[in-house]
Amino acid sequence: MRYAVLDGGKRLRPLLVLAAAEAVQGNAEAALRAACAVELIHAYSLVHDDMPCMDNDVLRRGKPTVHVQFGEARALLAGDALQALAFELLTPDGAEVPADMQSKLCRVLARAAGADGMAGGQAIDLASVGKPLGEAELRDMHERKTGALLQASVRMGAVCGSAVAPAARAALDDFGAAIGLAFQVVDDILDVTADSAALGKTAGKDAAADKPTYVSLLGLPAAQALADALCARAHAALTDSGLPGVERLRALADLVVKRRN
Amino acid sequence: MRYAVLDGGKRLRPLLVLAAAEAVQGNAEAALRAACAVELIHAYSLVHDDMPCMDNDVLRRGKPTVHVQFGEARALLAGDALQALAFELLTPDGAEVPADMQSKLCRVLARAAGADGMAGGQAIDLASVGKPLGEAELRDMHERKTGALLQASVRMGAVCGSAVAPAARAALDDFGAAIGLAFQVVDDILDVTADSAALGKTAGKDAAADKPTYVSLLGLPAAQALADALCARAHAALTDSGLPGVERLRALADLVVKRRN
Repeated sequence: MRYAVLDGGKRLRPLLVLAAAEAVQGNAEAALRAACAVELIHAYSLVHDDMPCMDNDVLRRGKPTVHVQFGEARALLAGDALQALAFELLTPDGAEVPADMQSKLCRVLARAAGADGMAGGQAIDLASVGKPLGEAELRDMHERKTGALLQASVRMGAVCGSAVAPAARAALDDFGAAIGLAFQVVDDILDVTADSAALGKTAGKDAAADKPTYVSLLGLPAAQALADALCARAHAALTDSGLPGVERLRALADLVVKRRN
Repeated sequence: MRYAVLDGGKRLRPLLVLAAAEAVQGNAEAALRAACAVELIHAYSLVHDDMPCMDNDVLRRGKPTVHVQFGEARALLAGDALQALAFELLTPDGAEVPADMQSKLCRVLARAAGADGMAGGQAIDLASVGKPLGEAELRDMHERKTGALLQASVRMGAVCGSAVAPAARAALDDFGAAIGLAFQVVDDILDVTADSAALGKTAGKDAAADKPTYVSLLGLPAAQALADALCARAHAALTDSGLPGVERLRALADLVVKRRN
């Protein structure tokens, strides 16, 4: 479990939780727990996704994947236990995090992680190898597979605030949706433009697996333009939120689109 | 996910939740959600446990296992999504289940399912194939692997009650611990005394895999005596609880020890 989590990932999802919590002056203890919980879900999904029956990948963040290092059975169980640990972190026994905040955080994370979110998106992804997908179908898959957890990160940060106006909450949701989709578009771009060393994982594997991507669907220039448009939409949403302290969220939106790995 | 869950299992864990909730006159909506959630965790664990990298079992409850029917990748994802769904069920949006009950239910379930509970017990189980374990080590493994979730079932039922005396809660916990261990002892007994048709799964597989069991450790007569002693302890705990409506819990304790599959 440690090997899977403590390995120098980008920590984008926890950063989003913390930045969103900062924007709403949220409960710091709740935000830190939410940040860790969402990263644990992300880490478990990578462990399972790398397994031979899924992407069969041997390299992750520049290191052997968990199943290569520890065997498949332990990789499977480590992933399972990481998911449980996420919900354990969200429900501490003391009074630092109010019960209604705990239950809301669990609700948002469970929905984003499950069949209507990440796991469901991965199932659609698996089923669509070699199939021509339209942009709407591709977008639906990515909204679940990657977007749901990124959007949940922003939403969980917002949940840590106790008196956030509904309009500000909606604007943060729109921000989360925009960067969630932008992240995947950029992922597809990097899969063809970056090399394995920069990515810390195997480059070109989507094309090799004949997976539909934004690049295969739109071409590289249009995919880049889409990423830029989504970044602009994210910034507009932050302006619309009327929240004062959104600088870190702005920086994270830029990071998502300008990242090299 | 449906194939893994809606397949005529014994539903022992949900029955324990509902019986414990009845004993404390608990919130019915919370109890039903908790009952379903704990069964989803149990069902996901069976799906993953049956996979080739784990027990590599092809028969479960008389049907092909999930990975045989749908492939390994979908079995992995179905299990992952079932775990998320458990926590989603525990955190409904409306007011029927108070937030503090939701967060407590998540806390109990997450701890029982994770590294200190079920998933950790399975990891110890894997690591102990072919190794001589003492009774204390075997007990620790089973307390995590099977006992934790059974005990959590009783505890979750108790959480659904709003004004349960600490002594009654402790007695229910002791009841849960006793039947949790009894369940595993009986499992080990059935593995050598029942046939695959009665079990709905492959009989004799522990012995075949050279796994330590209560039967291999104590012999069949002493294992049977241990099961009976644990059943008596469970009944004594219910008497100690001072709760009036414990008949269904008594019946479930008997069922655990006298079951044929």
